[in-house]
Amino acid sequence: MKTASIIIIGNEILSGRTQDTNSNYLAKMLVQKGISLEEIRVIPDDLNIIESVVNNEASAKDYVFTSGGIGPTHDDITAEAIANCFHTPLIVRDDAVELLAMNYKNGKKDLNTARLRMARIPKGAKLIKNKISGAPGFIIKNVFVMAGVPQIFEAMVQEIILNIGSVNPILSKTVKVFTKESEIADILWNYADRYKDISIGSYPFNNSGVFGVEIVLRHTDRVRLNKVFNEILRDLNEPNTS
Amino acid sequence: MKTASIIIIGNEILSGRTQDTNSNYLAKMLVQKGISLEEIRVIPDDLNIIESVVNNEASAKDYVFTSGGIGPTHDDITAEAIANCFHTPLIVRDDAVELLAMNYKNGKKDLNTARLRMARIPKGAKLIKNKISGAPGFIIKNVFVMAGVPQIFEAMVQEIILNIGSVNPILSKTVKVFTKESEIADILWNYADRYKDISIGSYPFNNSGVFGVEIVLRHTDRVRLNKVFNEILRDLNEPNTS
Repeated sequence: MKTASIIIIGNEILSGRTQDTNSNYLAKMLVQKGISLEEIRVIPDDLNIIESVVNNEASAKDYVFTSGGIGPTHDDITAEAIANCFHTPLIVRDDAVELLAMNYKNGKKDLNTARLRMARIPKGAKLIKNKISGAPGFIIKNVFVMAGVPQIFEAMVQEIILNIGSVNPILSKTVKVFTKESEIADILWNYADRYKDISIGSYPFNNSGVFGVEIVLRHTDRVRLNKVFNEILRDLNEPNTS
Repeated sequence: MKTASIIIIGNEILSGRTQDTNSNYLAKMLVQKGISLEEIRVIPDDLNIIESVVNNEASAKDYVFTSGGIGPTHDDITAEAIANCFHTPLIVRDDAVELLAMNYKNGKKDLNTARLRMARIPKGAKLIKNKISGAPGFIIKNVFVMAGVPQIFEAMVQEIILNIGSVNPILSKTVKVFTKESEIADILWNYADRYKDISIGSYPFNNSGVFGVEIVLRHTDRVRLNKVFNEILRDLNEPNTS
């Protein structure tokens, strides 16, 4: 199975000002594409840190997705950090200028210095368009560099997602059991031991005083997943729902 | 300034099933305590990964906060991983058993094997109580190990937060400017260059078609923060709001 990391770049997440939702959005997509998301890292707007974390993740995972730091202001330094990672120059590229210019009334005439910063793309990178704003993201090697604004991030994910991963999603089966986790822990333990290839999660919930556990099984093989799921349902005395 | 990392442990976050909100909750608290949150890492329920990531973060930061993996089921392996980190045995402790037992009708008699797992605490660790459930978290060296269920996590944060950090919060001043980021990028750049000790963030927003930028300045010194904030307001032609 292919592996991935998501790197969320931005002081506003670390200060608590902004609740990151981009990683959750992309995480769900990766499941659909059969890609195993191994880690999410939230890091500050710091050139050296971005470079070092992207370097580590890019060499360890099949795909790396970044979010944030590609706008026009002083704290937008992701493109520079990624260019450093891959020892490639960061240049104002004509194809990126064209995309940007389409977004302004007077086209290229409206591109001031700040706006032109958004056309700086590492040499050799492939652009990621988006349907919301003119400013493109880019792909270099196995690193996908996207915007932080959720609406634009999501539009960029839609652009790239068709071309990555496999057609075999990671499937899941879920059952809610209205008991305490500690009452069914032995049963789950037994299954986790017997079926090590199946991911078995146990998530307690409390909905306005109604306590229970959601049990989630995950695997790419539908037949095997259903078989083990039905065995667990039987042991839990739950009706077969598959 | 003291530094911190948050480590969110749980496959349910990486699969997109669950949106993490614990790190945002704690991030806001750390700002109040003048602690600089340097990174948030979301990692899977994997013994070796938890051990290695906690080891790295604990040696690099003043405080490490973990969330998740201290319940009664097979996928709750955080306590074991942390004990491994510090080369200390994981034992069922009497003080933790007492706390747990208070939560059940028949006290200790109700503590089955699964529940007793929640009383396994690394030798030498200090317990973190919580007002929601009996199961405690714990503190070992500079690592604070807390539950993943948001209600319990937040209760545990309330228990520990008074005893950490300083009385000098990281202060912030925010102004909303109804223009495009690229129109004010030069002004911000100038300030970021001149006042390198002040964190200046620029966050575009789009509220139902109303475009603007939120500019956030952060510093622990109120006088200095106000001075620079008022200078920026003047340059942006915004009314003085401080």
